[in-house]
Amino acid sequence: MKASRMLISTLKETPSEAVIPSHILLLRSGMIRKEVAGVYNYLPLGLRVLNKVEDVIREEMNNAGSLEILASAIQPKELWEESGRWYKYGPELMRLKDRHGREFCLGPTHEEIFTDLVRNEVKSKKQLPMSIYQIQTKYRDEFRPRFGLMRSREFIMKDAYSFDVDVKGLEESYQNMYDTYTRIFNRFHLKFVPVLADTGAIGGNGSHQFMALSEYGESDIIYCEECGYAADQEKAETKPDTYRNDEAELPKEEVATPCEGTIEDLAKFLNCSPKDIAKSVLYRDLAHKQLVLVLVRGDREVNEIKIVNALDCAEFELVLASDEDLKTLGTSAGFMGPIGLNVDKILVDEELVSQKNFFVGANKKDFHIKNVNYGRDFTGEVAQFRKSVAGDLCKECGKPVKMERGIEVGQIFKLGTKYSEPMKCTYTDDDGTNKPMVMGCYGIGVTRTMSAIIDQYHDDFGIKWPLNVAPYHAVVVPVNYKDETQKNVANDLYKKLLDLHVEVVLDDRDERPGFKFKDWELIGLPFMVIVGKRAAEGIVEFKDRATLEKKEVTIEEAVKLINEAVKSI
Amino acid sequence: MKASRMLISTLKETPSEAVIPSHILLLRSGMIRKEVAGVYNYLPLGLRVLNKVEDVIREEMNNAGSLEILASAIQPKELWEESGRWYKYGPELMRLKDRHGREFCLGPTHEEIFTDLVRNEVKSKKQLPMSIYQIQTKYRDEFRPRFGLMRSREFIMKDAYSFDVDVKGLEESYQNMYDTYTRIFNRFHLKFVPVLADTGAIGGNGSHQFMALSEYGESDIIYCEECGYAADQEKAETKPDTYRNDEAELPKEEVATPCEGTIEDLAKFLNCSPKDIAKSVLYRDLAHKQLVLVLVRGDREVNEIKIVNALDCAEFELVLASDEDLKTLGTSAGFMGPIGLNVDKILVDEELVSQKNFFVGANKKDFHIKNVNYGRDFTGEVAQFRKSVAGDLCKECGKPVKMERGIEVGQIFKLGTKYSEPMKCTYTDDDGTNKPMVMGCYGIGVTRTMSAIIDQYHDDFGIKWPLNVAPYHAVVVPVNYKDETQKNVANDLYKKLLDLHVEVVLDDRDERPGFKFKDWELIGLPFMVIVGKRAAEGIVEFKDRATLEKKEVTIEEAVKLINEAVKSI
Repeated sequence: MKASRMLISTLKETPSEAVIPSHILLLRSGMIRKEVAGVYNYLPLGLRVLNKVEDVIREEMNNAGSLEILASAIQPKELWEESGRWYKYGPELMRLKDRHGREFCLGPTHEEIFTDLVRNEVKSKKQLPMSIYQIQTKYRDEFRPRFGLMRSREFIMKDAYSFDVDVKGLEESYQNMYDTYTRIFNRFHLKFVPVLADTGAIGGNGSHQFMALSEYGESDIIYCEECGYAADQEKAETKPDTYRNDEAELPKEEVATPCEGTIEDLAKFLNCSPKDIAKSVLYRDLAHKQLVLVLVRGDREVNEIKIVNALDCAEFELVLASDEDLKTLGTSAGFMGPIGLNVDKILVDEELVSQKNFFVGANKKDFHIKNVNYGRDFTGEVAQFRKSVAGDLCKECGKPVKMERGIEVGQIFKLGTKYSEPMKCTYTDDDGTNKPMVMGCYGIGVTRTMSAIIDQYHDDFGIKWPLNVAPYHAVVVPVNYKDETQKNVANDLYKKLLDLHVEVVLDDRDERPGFKFKDWELIGLPFMVIVGKRAAEGIVEFKDRATLEKKEVTIEEAVKLINEAVKSI
Repeated sequence: MKASRMLISTLKETPSEAVIPSHILLLRSGMIRKEVAGVYNYLPLGLRVLNKVEDVIREEMNNAGSLEILASAIQPKELWEESGRWYKYGPELMRLKDRHGREFCLGPTHEEIFTDLVRNEVKSKKQLPMSIYQIQTKYRDEFRPRFGLMRSREFIMKDAYSFDVDVKGLEESYQNMYDTYTRIFNRFHLKFVPVLADTGAIGGNGSHQFMALSEYGESDIIYCEECGYAADQEKAETKPDTYRNDEAELPKEEVATPCEGTIEDLAKFLNCSPKDIAKSVLYRDLAHKQLVLVLVRGDREVNEIKIVNALDCAEFELVLASDEDLKTLGTSAGFMGPIGLNVDKILVDEELVSQKNFFVGANKKDFHIKNVNYGRDFTGEVAQFRKSVAGDLCKECGKPVKMERGIEVGQIFKLGTKYSEPMKCTYTDDDGTNKPMVMGCYGIGVTRTMSAIIDQYHDDFGIKWPLNVAPYHAVVVPVNYKDETQKNVANDLYKKLLDLHVEVVLDDRDERPGFKFKDWELIGLPFMVIVGKRAAEGIVEFKDRATLEKKEVTIEEAVKLINEAVKSI
């Protein structure tokens, strides 16, 4: 491709909306453009990368025996009512009505559609196991879309669904996909870890997320170097701390705490550690119309996903209680506590069960209660409701865990019969009875994977695409295209590479060489051949984008270096 | 691919919803499945065809110098307000609101998005001409979706947009696309004609439709074998008939016509030809809040697209007047006429201007007026408002035109500055002034093209795919896969073809041979090799799907026949 005929839209400045490298570089290199918040257009260079990412995924999915189909983006409400998700999915589901008033959603995921398809097309046990996938545009109405392709409202996903006769079959299908995902993310040269994960709005009873490691990721990963345990922070479980669990219980007493502010402020006032205070957070559970008080140790954070799971409500149905709620209960923010508070439910983090003599709010402005003890002074449902953090002890082996940030690029789920049972997706067993198929589902965020690759492959000058997903493999840059010799050498080199099926750009633009070099470094093509003053001698400069190494080579050497690299993809 | 691992979902019976061959065969062969009215899922075989159709289009578009991008399906209302189409597009535009109440549509076409993109990215005259395209999912909320992929609500389109500095440039870009479309539809082996077309909701000042000829098409094509004139019936112009245009004008008189019914009934009662009566149709133009009476000769049909264009309203804004409207005007259905009727506008088909002494309704129940003449008795705006039909005389050369039905598979438009001017998509000219780019747009209905191919390539047994878009090139069918010899020969043949990169299926299913033959004839793979009793002698049967010819050949000959055909694609 000749650069003069391409749509090269590099930006010198970073658009103000972009704060993380992948978003900045996708915009600056002219791969994508924002249409509206969370909705992007892919320009020619970006689309080429997207297609290559899709092709790697497609090849591995086909090799794994999955069949590709293409389902509609529009999905009828009726199917989502059958599965019970029309309401449960909440405001992230983009809904619309057609001209006849019939309701639809734009699919954020396709469990209902695939289950419906298979229940209609597959009846015989002989046809199972079956795995079907698609690569398709999905919609999720994020409250605050951000970070470019990382958290967008229209995005491309590969979603696959497996249908087995029993749980044993599902385990095999699940492992097959686990291995396939490992191969896929390795082919993208990503540093990643598979971690135990919560199943969220998809449901089911087992899940792994594939996390590309990145300081710009939105997920926290808890992992143990000793035994290999790894889980998303939402899902992670660690051993409770043993802080002050061997003391005798002291009589409780009310103390004046005329101090409004954070737990840290209160600890300072009381001259104690935040750990000595129990933090009380009041939630409203919209699903069951109840007020729920959650207690964790003062230095801990509430893990809201664990609260959602304990209450069996949807994420959007758990909201912080309002000032009005507090007023009705006769308590006040900053002085709330479990004793004598008329809530529907109390959830207590397990650490507070063994810890002795802590402070809680007295439900009275400017007062706390001292020497409070679980069991004697209040009770509730006990489990891990705190977020695990680095330094907590591994539940499996007892060693301190570590924490890193990651980008969720894929997630796999054991759905079981969550969809097949209500939707009657069954097969006829040998004994003539109809049994629900046992399902799994498997997603890869295709556009997000593009982001994650950039995240791990960039430097101050731009993107450093791995060769197999680069928009083009190489660019030939004549320093002065008006110079006859340089022009001929560049044209000749370009033609030679094209003949070898190298995806190559000839930068024939009438621009300064520095301007061109900057463009290609930003765009991140793996190899650049600079045709300059020594062109007449048959000498050119060869530059490796990944290492920034530059060397003078003969034209033949340049061709050979590039050709060998491309053939080895 | 082994058939036992494929999702083959053929149907014996025709689903009741399907009435035309392409729809019937797409469903019966298991290429597509209906999700809801006008929304389909593509099963593995159908998706393979779709991908091949897309690839042909992609290759020709790339060769034509167009750059592929991928734009969002979701489009913000604001852009459609800039172009003035948010209201104008009417109820076919699928609209939705996000969680913040912001309004969007699901794009039926992308003029606004591409214009917005180019105005942001392209400033220099040096970058023009530019042509950009995408292959993408589109939405149109058809009132009555039907005929499978022919008129659906979610469909795949290739849409391209050209940006030039002037009208001369546009003419070249338009011709380039005209030629490219001709190449594309030739590669699909379609019998088609490019015809002059109305520009409809897209706008602009010149358009061609590419019509695949088909008795199941929804469009009527008027064409002249003599001079080559061809136009969509909506757009077609022919010479007015000269019926009774040399008579003297007679005094008009009221006649009693106690006869309710059709024009034919009335003609019978009056003992005249329907041609002697002027047909009056009353419309309400919602755009200008006016009542419009349209007159055509009694044997003619009103061409509503010509009315829409004359009134400069949108198609959905032209509706038949209600009984209430008629009542208010003091007239009655069946006895309506232009004389003394208090409407806002009268549109008169040109044929009635020269024709003498015809009948019109008297605006009084059971009465008509005889010997009415244009000019003397009433006036109005005159133009061709009738639909042209076979036998009318060609406007270009005077010979009688013919009429055939066709499927619109592509349409190209000269947009001019219809979008670039209001949306300020400009370039800086040499004199420093900003000038609007001159645009064209070019669509191909990708999924509809799939339908059109089936329409032209099928027989009583199923589809006869042209080799280059067939889901697979060939199938190897062992008559009895349990027979060791047949199994070995079939497996060997399958492997040989795979090694030659032939896309081949091995039908290893445990089914009767007749069942298997029927499946593959329905699915329409170009070549079938039947491995039967003479397998031990190295003899197999070779069957050509297009001709249904069957012959015994050696295994080597079968491989050679298929390989040569595939290599010649």
